[in-house]
Amino acid sequence: MSHFVLGLDFGTNSVRCLVVRVQDGKEIATSVSTYKHGEEGILLDANDPNLARQHPKDYETGTETTVREALAQAASFENFSPDKIIGIGVDTTGSTPLPVDRDGIPLAYQEKFADNLQAMAWLWKDHTSFEEAAAITEKASREHPEYLAKCGGIYSSEWYFSKLWHYLKQDSELAEATYAWVEMSDWIPGFLTGSLKPENLKLSVCAAGHKGLYCEDWGGYPAAEFLSGLDARIPELMSHVPNKAYAVDTPAGVLCEEWAGKLGLPAGIPVAVGAFDAHLGAVGSNIQPGTLIKILGTSSCDMIVAPNSMNLADIPGICGIVDGSILPGYYGLEAGQSAAGDVFNWFVNEIVPGGKDLGSHESLTSGAEALKPGESGLLALDWNNGNRCVLVDPRVTGLILGQTLHTQPAEIYRTLIESTAFGARVILERFEEYDVQVGEIINCGGIAEKNPLVMQIYADITGRPLKISRSAQTCALGAAICGAVVAGKDRGGYNSFAEAQAAMTGLKDVVFTPILENQNVYNRLYKLYRDLHDAFGTKSWEGNLHHVMKDLLEIRDGARVTG
Amino acid sequence: MSHFVLGLDFGTNSVRCLVVRVQDGKEIATSVSTYKHGEEGILLDANDPNLARQHPKDYETGTETTVREALAQAASFENFSPDKIIGIGVDTTGSTPLPVDRDGIPLAYQEKFADNLQAMAWLWKDHTSFEEAAAITEKASREHPEYLAKCGGIYSSEWYFSKLWHYLKQDSELAEATYAWVEMSDWIPGFLTGSLKPENLKLSVCAAGHKGLYCEDWGGYPAAEFLSGLDARIPELMSHVPNKAYAVDTPAGVLCEEWAGKLGLPAGIPVAVGAFDAHLGAVGSNIQPGTLIKILGTSSCDMIVAPNSMNLADIPGICGIVDGSILPGYYGLEAGQSAAGDVFNWFVNEIVPGGKDLGSHESLTSGAEALKPGESGLLALDWNNGNRCVLVDPRVTGLILGQTLHTQPAEIYRTLIESTAFGARVILERFEEYDVQVGEIINCGGIAEKNPLVMQIYADITGRPLKISRSAQTCALGAAICGAVVAGKDRGGYNSFAEAQAAMTGLKDVVFTPILENQNVYNRLYKLYRDLHDAFGTKSWEGNLHHVMKDLLEIRDGARVTG
Repeated sequence: MSHFVLGLDFGTNSVRCLVVRVQDGKEIATSVSTYKHGEEGILLDANDPNLARQHPKDYETGTETTVREALAQAASFENFSPDKIIGIGVDTTGSTPLPVDRDGIPLAYQEKFADNLQAMAWLWKDHTSFEEAAAITEKASREHPEYLAKCGGIYSSEWYFSKLWHYLKQDSELAEATYAWVEMSDWIPGFLTGSLKPENLKLSVCAAGHKGLYCEDWGGYPAAEFLSGLDARIPELMSHVPNKAYAVDTPAGVLCEEWAGKLGLPAGIPVAVGAFDAHLGAVGSNIQPGTLIKILGTSSCDMIVAPNSMNLADIPGICGIVDGSILPGYYGLEAGQSAAGDVFNWFVNEIVPGGKDLGSHESLTSGAEALKPGESGLLALDWNNGNRCVLVDPRVTGLILGQTLHTQPAEIYRTLIESTAFGARVILERFEEYDVQVGEIINCGGIAEKNPLVMQIYADITGRPLKISRSAQTCALGAAICGAVVAGKDRGGYNSFAEAQAAMTGLKDVVFTPILENQNVYNRLYKLYRDLHDAFGTKSWEGNLHHVMKDLLEIRDGARVTG
Repeated sequence: MSHFVLGLDFGTNSVRCLVVRVQDGKEIATSVSTYKHGEEGILLDANDPNLARQHPKDYETGTETTVREALAQAASFENFSPDKIIGIGVDTTGSTPLPVDRDGIPLAYQEKFADNLQAMAWLWKDHTSFEEAAAITEKASREHPEYLAKCGGIYSSEWYFSKLWHYLKQDSELAEATYAWVEMSDWIPGFLTGSLKPENLKLSVCAAGHKGLYCEDWGGYPAAEFLSGLDARIPELMSHVPNKAYAVDTPAGVLCEEWAGKLGLPAGIPVAVGAFDAHLGAVGSNIQPGTLIKILGTSSCDMIVAPNSMNLADIPGICGIVDGSILPGYYGLEAGQSAAGDVFNWFVNEIVPGGKDLGSHESLTSGAEALKPGESGLLALDWNNGNRCVLVDPRVTGLILGQTLHTQPAEIYRTLIESTAFGARVILERFEEYDVQVGEIINCGGIAEKNPLVMQIYADITGRPLKISRSAQTCALGAAICGAVVAGKDRGGYNSFAEAQAAMTGLKDVVFTPILENQNVYNRLYKLYRDLHDAFGTKSWEGNLHHVMKDLLEIRDGARVTG
């Protein structure tokens, strides 16, 4: 008999529902619902480009719409019926916290706060709290350096406590009405299971660990004396949520009657604890020790796990190391690049917007494909959106050098691709320097799906065969796998992620294999990239760059001769 | 009674004739004739992008056409008649040498060589001799470092002996037929004065000094033993031209009967010794000690003079220091940038070719004008065509840094302009470091004529008021001034350049004055430019560039706040 699970994937602009067959991971139905409020689901403030909020109601109505639509689609699949759904998993963006009252109801639902942007969910990419972030980094580095060691050395304006602190300064009436500050990844399983009271939430260790400085080494969330040093009201707010967080093999509860009715499902289906989208994307791509998952889109996320029995050092420049944040029993390590596809999009949309023939991705890709490694004489740093890893520095910028009076857009385009691949190699090498070995690399996301040129360049530059995840919706698939695990074998699911992933994930046939002669050229270019990377990115570098342009010309001349 | 002079300006694609009134420099007629052979007057080889030749016949027919046309125009000017022309001056490109027989007749005129590209004039920008140039540099630095000290430390593939040496390797029949290797700047006054025999040429010290390693300090041209080390045939060829060169106050002779007939002028008019276009452009812009002339076009030439009584050190990184090459009695110092307008043209024509609305000079200029200094956060090195001064290094390339995902084409465009201005400031400071003081700066050329944005940025970055030469044809005007000086006061001209320039040159009303607040920002940016310049351009630099991107962001944030 077939069983099915639901994966709910709450992205930046929309929520997706995926219906997956448990036995083999077949995706039998999928639907997407864009959030209704704001621009593409995001509430903006014309006076403050840092502000990005969401209306929590959209999470509820989006869930209802997309689940009903997916179920309607699935209805025509043989052997499917809603009562064969045995588990539900949830992934969300984050840190995306929202203020709630003592019943866990968003303050945004109160009439007096209905138009108050401060009362909404603070979307992950809201950067209004940059001053608070810097102050937290400064204070933690002085008082609790161990807090920062697990999150790459810098506390971000995107994260839970920066946002909470800033929030409390905005509107005293709102601050007073606030009972708790709840991550979206906890609040959604909360309403699905009818357990919204903050004290009763089953917190996600993925969210708390990566964004909330939560770690069992120091007893969970940061010490009250540290938090009261930010704002005296924070310790009380934190006392209203549990000081205990869980991995995704833990059920948050079961689908409540109310939501069962709304969704057209039987009540009682286990709902897994939430996690962030990238982390469950890694699960949907079959992450396991020794396998690096790269989620390649506008930015990149690099996820890997290491047994939590291992004596893992803090790895400088890796964004987060959290026990259980990806798979239970393993440290989840998160790294990534603040821009990948966004750099190519910038070049196409802003710099060469000459339309389809002149400056489209298609025409530039075709020009770039015709070039050999090194042939352009160009080299770039991929820092147009700062550097997330391993420099952890938002105050760095893009660089390109080697231009002549003949340099063409397609040459720049290829060079920008190469620069992100060099950045990826830096991360890969950092993992291995700290004994986290990378045996296999599986890629997913828009670029992995659609861009063979980028994938081949990444293979040539990293020197690794690159595989592609079979699913085009690995985040939602990962959430669905959590549903299968919290269901357990007895109800038709699985007892472990290893079993569930083995059955439900897979690879595409294509593998991008490094081409030796390209690798040789790229190894020379990578040395030069490292020179620039270290010269502009680190304080400790000392040296001279006189050779860089000359070496590039020599490599270029060599590439042209062998043409 | 009014007197007039002719200035003949032999450019890369055409020859211009300017008729000028001696008393006040009024330009009463001007005409241009494009050379007839090749593409826009240049003979090319599809198999060799380095090759650029010209047919010497074009110099003769071009002279005839353009002088006759100018005289026809002038005929309607009151008080003008051809017999009131008292002197002729000539400027040409260079080094543009050609092979001639013992009568000074180009070998290209012989039927058997009529289609032989090697028999033509080797245009200044012919780079086929790059290997010979490197070998000459290497040999001279070993055996005669003093030769290189006067020409910036590197002998160029564009110059006289590189071309001669390469020429001799090409075609043995042609080499055997060759009696002398004559600069175009000597050959043209030669035919005008009916004195083409190589032994009788009055050589230009501008050409010989800047391109032929000629200097009276070591007895004129390089020693025969040095030249025979290149090719054993060179000393004999050199023995057929005088080992004595002259400044432009020397008459090459007088207009001969034959050419008087061709041009419709009386015979006997004094013709000045030739010089290069940029040098006479400086004369036409009223160069004098303490006045820097900047000729700003696709590339830039920076010309200044210093009394030859002064004990002038060799200035590292200045292209040429030649006694009398601009004004008699003064060292002529030539510096410059290998690309200026060419960098802006590259960006517009190659990178953002989106047509008039998207990526024209006009639209980018208008976008760039709206920006404040530092507001883009960008910084560039202006080395897309190498660096002529002060690094004297063709093996460096362009660089731009500071890009974000929001960087716009107009920001890049302004940054490229600024980069060339920073490069100009480096040259200015180098002159002054070696006691060549710059009191006044006068600009001419296409950019000075037409681009107020560029001129204001140059003023702000150099911190100097920038004046613009009155004439739009300063090279031809400078040649005409030479005509007035070789005529002398008794015939209605002048006895000195000082008198002639005072009467015949002038300034436009506009002066670009530095704006203090812009200067302050640009002084900060210039420090960063120097860091990049020295880090990538010199072997001796040691340091760290970690501050560069951060300082740029700080400057940017400051500029935006004050907006």
